[in-house]
Amino acid sequence: MMIDGLQCGYFTRDVFATLKEGGFTCVTSTLGFWEGSQASLDAIGRWRRLARANQDLMLIARTANDVMHAGESGRVAILLGFQNSTLLDGRIDYVELFAELGVRVVQLTYNNQNEAGGSCYEEQDNGLARFGREIVREMNRSGILVDLSHVGDKTTLDAIEWSQKPVAISHANAASLFPHKRNKSDRVLKALAERGGVIGCATYRNITPESACASVRDWCEMVARTVDIAGVDHVAIGTDEGHGNTQADLDWMRAGHWTRGADYGAGSAARPGKVAKPDWLPRTSELAKVRHGLLEVGFNEAERDQILAGNWLRVYREVFPA
Amino acid sequence: MMIDGLQCGYFTRDVFATLKEGGFTCVTSTLGFWEGSQASLDAIGRWRRLARANQDLMLIARTANDVMHAGESGRVAILLGFQNSTLLDGRIDYVELFAELGVRVVQLTYNNQNEAGGSCYEEQDNGLARFGREIVREMNRSGILVDLSHVGDKTTLDAIEWSQKPVAISHANAASLFPHKRNKSDRVLKALAERGGVIGCATYRNITPESACASVRDWCEMVARTVDIAGVDHVAIGTDEGHGNTQADLDWMRAGHWTRGADYGAGSAARPGKVAKPDWLPRTSELAKVRHGLLEVGFNEAERDQILAGNWLRVYREVFPA
Repeated sequence: MMIDGLQCGYFTRDVFATLKEGGFTCVTSTLGFWEGSQASLDAIGRWRRLARANQDLMLIARTANDVMHAGESGRVAILLGFQNSTLLDGRIDYVELFAELGVRVVQLTYNNQNEAGGSCYEEQDNGLARFGREIVREMNRSGILVDLSHVGDKTTLDAIEWSQKPVAISHANAASLFPHKRNKSDRVLKALAERGGVIGCATYRNITPESACASVRDWCEMVARTVDIAGVDHVAIGTDEGHGNTQADLDWMRAGHWTRGADYGAGSAARPGKVAKPDWLPRTSELAKVRHGLLEVGFNEAERDQILAGNWLRVYREVFPA
Repeated sequence: MMIDGLQCGYFTRDVFATLKEGGFTCVTSTLGFWEGSQASLDAIGRWRRLARANQDLMLIARTANDVMHAGESGRVAILLGFQNSTLLDGRIDYVELFAELGVRVVQLTYNNQNEAGGSCYEEQDNGLARFGREIVREMNRSGILVDLSHVGDKTTLDAIEWSQKPVAISHANAASLFPHKRNKSDRVLKALAERGGVIGCATYRNITPESACASVRDWCEMVARTVDIAGVDHVAIGTDEGHGNTQADLDWMRAGHWTRGADYGAGSAARPGKVAKPDWLPRTSELAKVRHGLLEVGFNEAERDQILAGNWLRVYREVFPA
């Protein structure tokens, strides 16, 4: 089994076939970055169409058992995820409604501060805000995994503590291994682990050490160092792979509706555009290379399988509806 | 058992208690008249709160079995209904999503023509429009009852024919007994019956014969005459009772967002405001009077029970998800 805690971009029949061939059991897809409730319903509608048209290759999973079932039937389980809580339009009631429609992962903030809390790119982060406290508990109740990637440090720590269920940092790396606003401090990773959460290590070049982009072994070394920080029960995979994103998509992710100026997201003025995939991972379908790589850097098979799938599965069992 | 195919207004704990004491098994509530998807989600959210706060008195029913279960546990089953298809915001995908959130009855149009078809108040009705054909079939598939009250004659006839499941005229009377744009021709009622549908006879004074507002026996006579037209398997109750509606609510129902002018809905310039409840039904809780009234006008007990609940239940079984 192999589970990826975050992919985005355009999911097509070809992508599902590639994921299936590549040995993916489950992938959390991104249905939105800045969108409100209506556009988010539209995205769910599009995914229902995708699921109907590709039911031989994939299914939309709502439970951990659905993920297992997908694996057994040779299909890819897709978890519907959003990289922002803007889909709620500020309404506590919508958490339950979107959960009923199959949403399973919601990140509290994307790149900007919102009603729920602070983002990693804001100069200041006031921590989990009033609405954030409400929706974290409501997500706990409704079976949605709280995602803290892109979220500011204080809000992340607050949410880890406030949540009654394990939370996730679905796609980021350890800041002590690669300093970047998107990456997470050891303090955060230790707090995450203490509460049973999981970090999905990313392959996205802008937030990944250059060496770990160069060779699969070095990427697996990065995972091993992350395990040194958070423990083997709390580290998994969240590539942040984007399928077929264009510059226009990148512009939307970064500027959304909120600025007429330039924003570089995880990039920079020096690196404003799309970055190359890791040298060892030119196609997502090759991610299974890490199966061997993780053994090479010293994990035994049981540990390897935890990192590949078991840790995510445990969190899904604890968080999703039964 | 007693089922009311339509009530609107403000549902409070007192209303639920009154409905329970009055012997109601099931009531279809109105969650919207003109609203789009977001306001409709908000209305569903409010009903979830009502249901949590009043679970000793009522439940939101999603299946015919839920209705039976409510009856057995001495609670009122509420079906979530909308008097317009504007909640879909023109999206075929939203039918399934709203069905999953528990919506069970959707009227194709309220007082104005829309993307689905024509209304009874328009001068012309072009019949079931392209989007109307799409959503009728999608409602069939998703388990939502198609309601044709307020809908224009041609659109009503088209929808009856096009639907693959029985449809409803949830709150109207026979136009041959009381001529009014809101009431339905014998031709429509016969077509409805032929396809297994049901009409809920109303007690709303603006569309009900004066005599039938004066005495319960006369109202039951009206029901008997409706049975003469549509048959005893196809006539039920749909009072159109409004709980605590104010003039401001009436203004919203009639003018919505669509006009700055005066619109009288089922009223008229001569009768512009709220009309009195029927003389025999000053409070909804007294509707059970018709149990005896229907026997008095010649129905046997089995027929009486069909009109009170059995006909609606049959349609619910055929239309709602199992």
